[in-house]
Amino acid sequence: MLDYSKILPWYKPAANESLKCVSKGQGLYQRAKELIPGATHLFGKRAELYAPDVWPCYYKRAKGCTIWDLDGNKYLDFTMVGIGACTLGYADRDITSAVHKELVSGNLCTLNSPLEVQLAEKLAELHPWSQMVRYARTGGEMASIAIRIARASTGKSKIIICGYHGWHDWYLSANLASQKCLDGHLLQGLQPNGVPRELQGLTIPVKYGDADSLKMLLRADHDIAAVVMEPSREQGYDKVFLSQVREECSRHSVVLIFDETTSGFREYCGGIHMLSGTAPDLCIFGKTISNGIPMAALIGTRSVMEAAQSTFISSTYWTESIGPAAALEFIKKHQRLNLGTVLEQVGERIRNNIQTACNSSGLEVTFNGTKALTSFSIVHHDWPKMLTLFTQMMMNQGVLASDRSYSNYSHTFSGALRKHRTAITDVLGRIALYASRDELDNVLRTRVKTSSFGRI
Amino acid sequence: MLDYSKILPWYKPAANESLKCVSKGQGLYQRAKELIPGATHLFGKRAELYAPDVWPCYYKRAKGCTIWDLDGNKYLDFTMVGIGACTLGYADRDITSAVHKELVSGNLCTLNSPLEVQLAEKLAELHPWSQMVRYARTGGEMASIAIRIARASTGKSKIIICGYHGWHDWYLSANLASQKCLDGHLLQGLQPNGVPRELQGLTIPVKYGDADSLKMLLRADHDIAAVVMEPSREQGYDKVFLSQVREECSRHSVVLIFDETTSGFREYCGGIHMLSGTAPDLCIFGKTISNGIPMAALIGTRSVMEAAQSTFISSTYWTESIGPAAALEFIKKHQRLNLGTVLEQVGERIRNNIQTACNSSGLEVTFNGTKALTSFSIVHHDWPKMLTLFTQMMMNQGVLASDRSYSNYSHTFSGALRKHRTAITDVLGRIALYASRDELDNVLRTRVKTSSFGRI
Repeated sequence: MLDYSKILPWYKPAANESLKCVSKGQGLYQRAKELIPGATHLFGKRAELYAPDVWPCYYKRAKGCTIWDLDGNKYLDFTMVGIGACTLGYADRDITSAVHKELVSGNLCTLNSPLEVQLAEKLAELHPWSQMVRYARTGGEMASIAIRIARASTGKSKIIICGYHGWHDWYLSANLASQKCLDGHLLQGLQPNGVPRELQGLTIPVKYGDADSLKMLLRADHDIAAVVMEPSREQGYDKVFLSQVREECSRHSVVLIFDETTSGFREYCGGIHMLSGTAPDLCIFGKTISNGIPMAALIGTRSVMEAAQSTFISSTYWTESIGPAAALEFIKKHQRLNLGTVLEQVGERIRNNIQTACNSSGLEVTFNGTKALTSFSIVHHDWPKMLTLFTQMMMNQGVLASDRSYSNYSHTFSGALRKHRTAITDVLGRIALYASRDELDNVLRTRVKTSSFGRI
Repeated sequence: MLDYSKILPWYKPAANESLKCVSKGQGLYQRAKELIPGATHLFGKRAELYAPDVWPCYYKRAKGCTIWDLDGNKYLDFTMVGIGACTLGYADRDITSAVHKELVSGNLCTLNSPLEVQLAEKLAELHPWSQMVRYARTGGEMASIAIRIARASTGKSKIIICGYHGWHDWYLSANLASQKCLDGHLLQGLQPNGVPRELQGLTIPVKYGDADSLKMLLRADHDIAAVVMEPSREQGYDKVFLSQVREECSRHSVVLIFDETTSGFREYCGGIHMLSGTAPDLCIFGKTISNGIPMAALIGTRSVMEAAQSTFISSTYWTESIGPAAALEFIKKHQRLNLGTVLEQVGERIRNNIQTACNSSGLEVTFNGTKALTSFSIVHHDWPKMLTLFTQMMMNQGVLASDRSYSNYSHTFSGALRKHRTAITDVLGRIALYASRDELDNVLRTRVKTSSFGRI
């Protein structure tokens, strides 16, 4: 049996654990399954999405884009780097320092923190179309607040969605009619069990770019409160589509909400919609605004946001100050580093590393997403199996990698991109060889990854 | 005009501000009203609930139970001390240190933090009836997850509530039939604008102690998924009622959820239900579990919690590690200090200070709440006006005070309780005199406080 006593003195491994686990991280993951339904609190952090039986699962330390796992292995992170949240890299010194200052000064109090007003001023300055803000601590909760405000402002109930907007009832209810309604909006197979069936029909999905369906819906149904959408997802933003959506929403007095939980404060310091020339009525920011510290913000026009006064939206932990402190410091640093440009350049180099490795191995690759949010797939009859092997073999080269590789500021440190190129060239070269000999199974030491939601 | 340039260099006061504001805090509050609908992110932090025109509103620093406002005034906090969240006092050194350790080690990563498993073990150890956990970052969001799991587990929709459970649709929908349904459950006048009318009838309030109504409801309606209640609120917990609720829920296969966002980890290290002898199926913890760092936890039996696997509940910021680190440190310190007993003793001294001051001034006082969550009212034909004057005059004595005075560990430091006694004796003595001469209006320098929710 593995000895956990030093690294995890509180940990009690299961009796038969040595039989099934290859590492402390895997052992702890088995224990987590007994204590936490689904093992992790974010779907995207499940080992089953990477290389189920060899993925390190847990970390002891993370700095920049380097991660040390529980067994002392050191990896460069070329996956989504904190599922897209930490664009400056892990344990950024400036964010840590800003947060520590708040902790020492008292981050929660009977009175309010001036930082929440300061951040409100900053967000309004970055988005001149908006005048007011509300905060939360997760993107999903922020989206629920946006929906509440849109419904309160219009007195209507229905919502048209386009994209991924979290776990809350209002969103998942789109799958009550058929569990496939949300397929194609990032995650497949989202089960709406526990969402009251009374909500069926209130949330209607529309495909990105399908202006005709949107027009028809808005013309036919006069109970639509809002259109909520990710302005940019797999193919970047579509200027023409966004302006069509804007026009239709204005025509029918429907609130237009952009969800920039993923796209905001990445290529652009603010919502990426600022580049598109289309302003929404409300815009949601989440994980990208504070480099790993819980924070979310909703900005909007005064006329829509004032509806928040007519409904009860209130929570104690929205009023602590490390969230605003981290966001203010992050925004300052985003501007100082010209982070948007850096992330695009890093994305180009990541794509170039992948493309070059594929070219020299005779593999055919296609890219998706924006440069800063690169995903790729290689043409093969069993891509999930090949991808799992890719993750397993990259781990052996000291790199965490999957089919999504999000740009990070810390990828520019200490030759990380060069190491990535070396590793991926070697790994894809060998994978091409195994594939040509139909030998993938011979080298795979784990079950194949899954990608859709389900019981584990 | 006030000079904000030094203390708030980013702040642009309104042109006519000097006319209406008595302090920097009040000035900033006016500005906040233009930027944030409702000015604050927690209803309980509005100046309108204390002494609208003189309340300091914002703070620069807070340590223990001492607060420095933006104008450099120093106060002892004898209100709810962080609206009940910071029982160890502000900027607790051990919590700060545990959080700082996580920041430096990287608090969010592509991999998971072992601390979330460690906290799960600890919560299960403290509550032997429970086997599994889920986390969030606010009590309100945690309650929504509990409701989702209860509905998924039973396949039913309706919820019986008893107490205050936050701002989400499932809860506020109780007021769709009549806006008075939730009156008596902590907050009055909660407007459900923006909650879809389709949810009407799904959430049914029952009064604490009213076992007969609960029985009738559960017998008549077979679509009830859960009873969610605060096991202890204004009068402490009622052993008999809780065991009756437990029995009825078990009989009808209804999930029993205790919401211990306010009562948990205060008098008892864990849910206060552990003292009552009644175990729920799920139990919610929120602001009291981490002394001011965003964190919330749901514990429950394996059979109910496993339903979380059949529905999608996922958020990035639930996976960062400062929340679990703060909770683990807080629980350790709660046990080490025997905090529950200390808070009860402090509460007795606070009540004693109030009672003694009232006795010597000839005022008649009644107490409500548990010792650690004391509230009081003085018999007077215009108690809101008298209370507002009390707050105003206590401020002049260097004490923040209202009709709720929650016990805090830091109240035991540096003679804080003695200073409270001196201040309250002086203030209530003078208030009794003003009241006897019908002169309250002559000394009141602010509008009278409100207590119910509404537009500001």
